[in-house]
Amino acid sequence: MTELQHTNSPGKSSRDDGFTQPAPQTPGMNPADAENLHPADLADHLENLTLEKQVSAFTRLPKEDAAEALAELDETTAVDVLENLDDDVAAQIIAEMAPDDAADVLDELDEEHRDALLDKLDREDSEELRNLLTFDPDTAGGVMNTELILLDRSLTVDEAIVYIRSEMADKESPYYAYIVDARHVLVGVLSLRDLMLARPGVIVGDAVQGQNVVTVRYDMDQREVAGLLSHYNFLALPVVDKEGHILGVVTYDDIMDIIHEEASADLLGMVGADPEESVDTPWPESVRRRLPWLFVNMVNSALSASVVYMFEGSIAQMAVLAVLMPMVANQAGNTGQQALAVMIRQLATDRFDQKKAWLAVWREGKIGLVTGLAMAVTAFCGAWVFTGLPAVGLVMAGALLCDMLLGAMAGGSIPLVFRALGRDPAQASSIFLTTITDGAGFFIFLGLATLFLL
Amino acid sequence: MTELQHTNSPGKSSRDDGFTQPAPQTPGMNPADAENLHPADLADHLENLTLEKQVSAFTRLPKEDAAEALAELDETTAVDVLENLDDDVAAQIIAEMAPDDAADVLDELDEEHRDALLDKLDREDSEELRNLLTFDPDTAGGVMNTELILLDRSLTVDEAIVYIRSEMADKESPYYAYIVDARHVLVGVLSLRDLMLARPGVIVGDAVQGQNVVTVRYDMDQREVAGLLSHYNFLALPVVDKEGHILGVVTYDDIMDIIHEEASADLLGMVGADPEESVDTPWPESVRRRLPWLFVNMVNSALSASVVYMFEGSIAQMAVLAVLMPMVANQAGNTGQQALAVMIRQLATDRFDQKKAWLAVWREGKIGLVTGLAMAVTAFCGAWVFTGLPAVGLVMAGALLCDMLLGAMAGGSIPLVFRALGRDPAQASSIFLTTITDGAGFFIFLGLATLFLL
Repeated sequence: MTELQHTNSPGKSSRDDGFTQPAPQTPGMNPADAENLHPADLADHLENLTLEKQVSAFTRLPKEDAAEALAELDETTAVDVLENLDDDVAAQIIAEMAPDDAADVLDELDEEHRDALLDKLDREDSEELRNLLTFDPDTAGGVMNTELILLDRSLTVDEAIVYIRSEMADKESPYYAYIVDARHVLVGVLSLRDLMLARPGVIVGDAVQGQNVVTVRYDMDQREVAGLLSHYNFLALPVVDKEGHILGVVTYDDIMDIIHEEASADLLGMVGADPEESVDTPWPESVRRRLPWLFVNMVNSALSASVVYMFEGSIAQMAVLAVLMPMVANQAGNTGQQALAVMIRQLATDRFDQKKAWLAVWREGKIGLVTGLAMAVTAFCGAWVFTGLPAVGLVMAGALLCDMLLGAMAGGSIPLVFRALGRDPAQASSIFLTTITDGAGFFIFLGLATLFLL
Repeated sequence: MTELQHTNSPGKSSRDDGFTQPAPQTPGMNPADAENLHPADLADHLENLTLEKQVSAFTRLPKEDAAEALAELDETTAVDVLENLDDDVAAQIIAEMAPDDAADVLDELDEEHRDALLDKLDREDSEELRNLLTFDPDTAGGVMNTELILLDRSLTVDEAIVYIRSEMADKESPYYAYIVDARHVLVGVLSLRDLMLARPGVIVGDAVQGQNVVTVRYDMDQREVAGLLSHYNFLALPVVDKEGHILGVVTYDDIMDIIHEEASADLLGMVGADPEESVDTPWPESVRRRLPWLFVNMVNSALSASVVYMFEGSIAQMAVLAVLMPMVANQAGNTGQQALAVMIRQLATDRFDQKKAWLAVWREGKIGLVTGLAMAVTAFCGAWVFTGLPAVGLVMAGALLCDMLLGAMAGGSIPLVFRALGRDPAQASSIFLTTITDGAGFFIFLGLATLFLL
């Protein structure tokens, strides 16, 4: 549900949206109170209960309230509940859920259980859900809602408004109507505002003549869909197949969730955590998902360590090199991460422009150079004072400047290179960056030291 | 504008939303074509022009198209354009902008120029904008739109619909109507759907009796506003003052922008980049904003280096320690960053729950322990093979296990500690984490080595 919730008529279906209202949460809430609670708040309350109490609550709740609450639960909890509910109860709840929400949670069940539940639904619901489940969950088809308002192109504006009024109680996006021909090919879009402001006798098919409708194909990545919808500030985007038949609609509320998810995915993926991880993820699963990247990181740090090994002799002669060496790597690593972060977010929030992207790398280079100079001067003074040897200061400064510049440009480039290779721009990018800044930093610093100090 | 754009009647005001349509962009676009372009696409096109051409385009565009395009420009470009436009032209464009968009861009000008432009507006517009400018830009008051539909509580449902129809052409959020008393205290909300489904004779004041409206105060942080709106999936949230008078409304499209901004702020702030930075930020400004944290990082790496210095003698005796030492720090640092990322996103996407937060730290501890064991075993084998000394392997494994566990718990805790101190949970968190994992890693590894190997 994308709209407000009804308080005033407890007897009415809670599907009827109505008025905003989280009633204040009462301790010891019983299911009879559930109707007065917004589904999102009810879900919050349920998430704090034990699995046993959750199952009990979902069994006793009116099926429509249960359906809306289930849609608001975090995924792990929703799956646990479904797996422990009586199958008949589970099927009844699923039947009341919006198709996109139902498909999302069914997708997480194992195939056998999913089929068992689908078989308990009536044929129409079951077919609709099976169809939705064929779409990749991270695409427009996997996110879309199939309950939308379609208008035949031959209707007049007033006929359209009457029809919408009769349909709007149950529709996800009641404020957009999609004009289709007899074969359900999308020919135009009209908002409720458009219809209310138009002259009554106008044929809707004529009203949308010449429109260039923004649509998304069912296989468009959800991230791209989110970008489009926030670019145009639409309430919803229609989803079509290759021939232009309308399949469903992606609404702004799903997009808000996607933006949150993708932002988390960037931050988590950058450091090698699982992009879909949250504090609700069971910890053994997190272990399983993080270990591969930790191994990759181990290999990478072994590579950097081998650079140090090349200069083991120099360190044996001048141990203070081991004291200063990590500072160079650390500083350049941080510089690189700053550039990396800016580029990752740039790719996430704006539509890709090749020229703009490489100009951005050049920009990072300039920043790396200037900040590198500032740090180099500081390091020169510091190292000179610390060791009493200006030559050490010079080596330190030179290595720092070079490594910071390299870090900045590597940080800006890595997401672009990943993207060009068809990989996620953020995934494990920080790990690969550190390999470069550590390895190069050690090499330059110890190399210069070996050349000029020993 | 949150809705679709009109193509069909080039003579009509482009403020009338109508139908979706980015017409394909033609090269050498001239202002006469602008009406057929969605403002967001027009803004994209304009952003690629030189400042001179931008100023020229904005001068020649119909004022309403210019206003909508200016609202869609990135902030830096919008400010540049305004500063170079003729003041009369600028004032005319601002007069056509939605008040919240106008206030956003005026806020970025220097005070003198801002006042000059405001003085050119008619009194009502000028007062409205001056009022909006008193709000902190990162709060509900700073984001809200003041053009909303208010219904006196004494109206009937059908009178309400007639009124809405007369107002909806110009309103940001035409699908919610806010029911107020004579003093504009908010008493309820009704959606257009509610009104269309209600019985005609009902008084709106009665219809909203007993509602518990979700509102935000003008001084609520925009991040919290965004969290509320996405929690409840509302189209808009009403903004009130301390006495409950309605001031404006925050709409979902502004929230989508805020979610993007806050996500970027997390990623950028974590590594010490400026949270509001993008590739459009002039590079000298980025230098200025990043340098402080780079200095902080330098100090922190000096602290870690001083730990190494304590063991300089050990390194002089056994130079291979310098080869292995960075591996421990690197691995623990990466582990810590994974925990840090999960916690940062948790605080960003969910409402804060103290108990849940510290349970999450405990969860990270378990993850750190198990992954630490896995890495320790790997490191033990690797170090033993590499040096031929099982004792070195043991020291390496022990240090790695301890440091990774410490890194995981530190990573999970730092955002909570920052938050408790009233600081942003993400800002520079990675820098402080590295200090811990580097310093502790060096200490434990070199300490164990000194104890057991020398």
